[in-house]
Amino acid sequence: MGKTVVHTINVEFGDCDPARIVWFPNFFRWIDAASRNFFIRCGVPSWHETEATMGILGTPLVDTRASFVRTASYGDTLQIHTTVSEWRGKSFVQSHRVMRGNEEIMNCDEVRIFAAHKEGGGIRAVAIPPEFRALCE
Amino acid sequence: MGKTVVHTINVEFGDCDPARIVWFPNFFRWIDAASRNFFIRCGVPSWHETEATMGILGTPLVDTRASFVRTASYGDTLQIHTTVSEWRGKSFVQSHRVMRGNEEIMNCDEVRIFAAHKEGGGIRAVAIPPEFRALCE
Amino acid sequence: MGKTVVHTINVEFGDCDPARIVWFPNFFRWIDAASRNFFIRCGVPSWHETEATMGILGTPLVDTRASFVRTASYGDTLQIHTTVSEWRGKSFVQSHRVMRGNEEIMNCDEVRIFAAHKEGGGIRAVAIPPEFRALCE
Amino acid sequence: MGKTVVHTINVEFGDCDPARIVWFPNFFRWIDAASRNFFIRCGVPSWHETEATMGILGTPLVDTRASFVRTASYGDTLQIHTTVSEWRGKSFVQSHRVMRGNEEIMNCDEVRIFAAHKEGGGIRAVAIPPEFRALCE
Repeated sequence: MGKTVVHTINVEFGDCDPARIVWFPNFFRWIDAASRNFFIRCGVPSWHETEATMGILGTPLVDTRASFVRTASYGDTLQIHTTVSEWRGKSFVQSHRVMRGNEEIMNCDEVRIFAAHKEGGGIRAVAIPPEFRALCE
Repeated sequence: MGKTVVHTINVEFGDCDPARIVWFPNFFRWIDAASRNFFIRCGVPSWHETEATMGILGTPLVDTRASFVRTASYGDTLQIHTTVSEWRGKSFVQSHRVMRGNEEIMNCDEVRIFAAHKEGGGIRAVAIPPEFRALCE
Repeated sequence: MGKTVVHTINVEFGDCDPARIVWFPNFFRWIDAASRNFFIRCGVPSWHETEATMGILGTPLVDTRASFVRTASYGDTLQIHTTVSEWRGKSFVQSHRVMRGNEEIMNCDEVRIFAAHKEGGGIRAVAIPPEFRALCE
Repeated sequence: MGKTVVHTINVEFGDCDPARIVWFPNFFRWIDAASRNFFIRCGVPSWHETEATMGILGTPLVDTRASFVRTASYGDTLQIHTTVSEWRGKSFVQSHRVMRGNEEIMNCDEVRIFAAHKEGGGIRAVAIPPEFRALCE
């Protein structure tokens, strides 16, 4: 296993729905932030910089699976533990575990790619830069 | 297979990210709307009403998996095709296919439950009301 | 007064907060969609096209004021009535009134500009294209 | 003037739009969090607790005005400086200034109320609890 980075989230009133619990799309918002934060904390340059220098826009999502174990509500502080659990040729698996102290709230495995603009609109996968992979291991 | 309901989405400028494509948590926002809309269109009462009459708050998510096949951007009109693909004792699988005309944009299978408030906060699964299941088949 | 365009919104469960009413930032999400929809319905090209042909990215917000008159909740259908109430040299005032049938839910006046990319990042105001203004009057 | 509380925000990729700048409704999301955080930091109990003990749900928005001075993008860290600038009978004015170090990004003045559930749905203003006001001064 490579490096693990922890990203902290404060759950806000507006993150919760009429059942008084976090409305689930917000978990994906936080996980997307944890995904980018992982690379920054490992030393990978900002997507602002990689777009200017290498044409790399970021790491969009290809597949995801998630399990929701416990509910959370506003006032809670959550810790997202993120690692890259597998590197493939043009994709990688990023795994996230959302905790409230010792309690697991949800977990999520994502397949992501490094992407560049495609002519005519949209995006295309590019080879994973080996120097970026090395920073995360 | 039971009934299929189609929910239409107009992709907006603010739904897209700096890569100019839909930022993925928005798909889960739309799928959650498609999920609720499915029940309404099948004749199940609003969660406002079921909470007042039966204590049922809605159908929160337990597990999900999704694949992102093609990108979409603002100005696109998407159709979400939703059905219940499996009924279990206290949960069910709802399947969503997001199309732009004939092109598949993404697909998603969700395990959801019917939920009521739990004493002390949070939610708990309740048995699926048979009259609701019958409306969806 | 120029043209008025009506944009329809279905309020979803996830748009509402633990007080069971629409969480107010969602009104601004809908108003931003109504703003763009106004131009499209008046015949102004998509920002995709104006960016490619003229460098115009859209109409970002400079100032806003809003009053919240009545609450709304999921299941409600809202109509946003949008017009340009004033044209200035490099900015314009767009006014939105959000109705639920005959009841006013909220109203909002926005100062917006037509914007292009600025060298080094960020955006800058450009003169309002007279052919776009003519389409809206 | 009463107490000022500073709330810190990390701008994320998904907070930005195709113009690569923060999509404005996100500022209102952050300001709503800063508003609640202000009361917590002043020692006012959580809305979870005030709802259980006094029926107070929170401090929904009645009127707002905002000016957007500079753009921000992902990777920026913002500080929201929040104070109550005026107390009225059943409402108060909360003022927020969003800074990136020494640069002002936007500012916002809000009229808010303390609210309880209204019979039949929706919310109603209640008198401002004097002990809460005292904590903020």
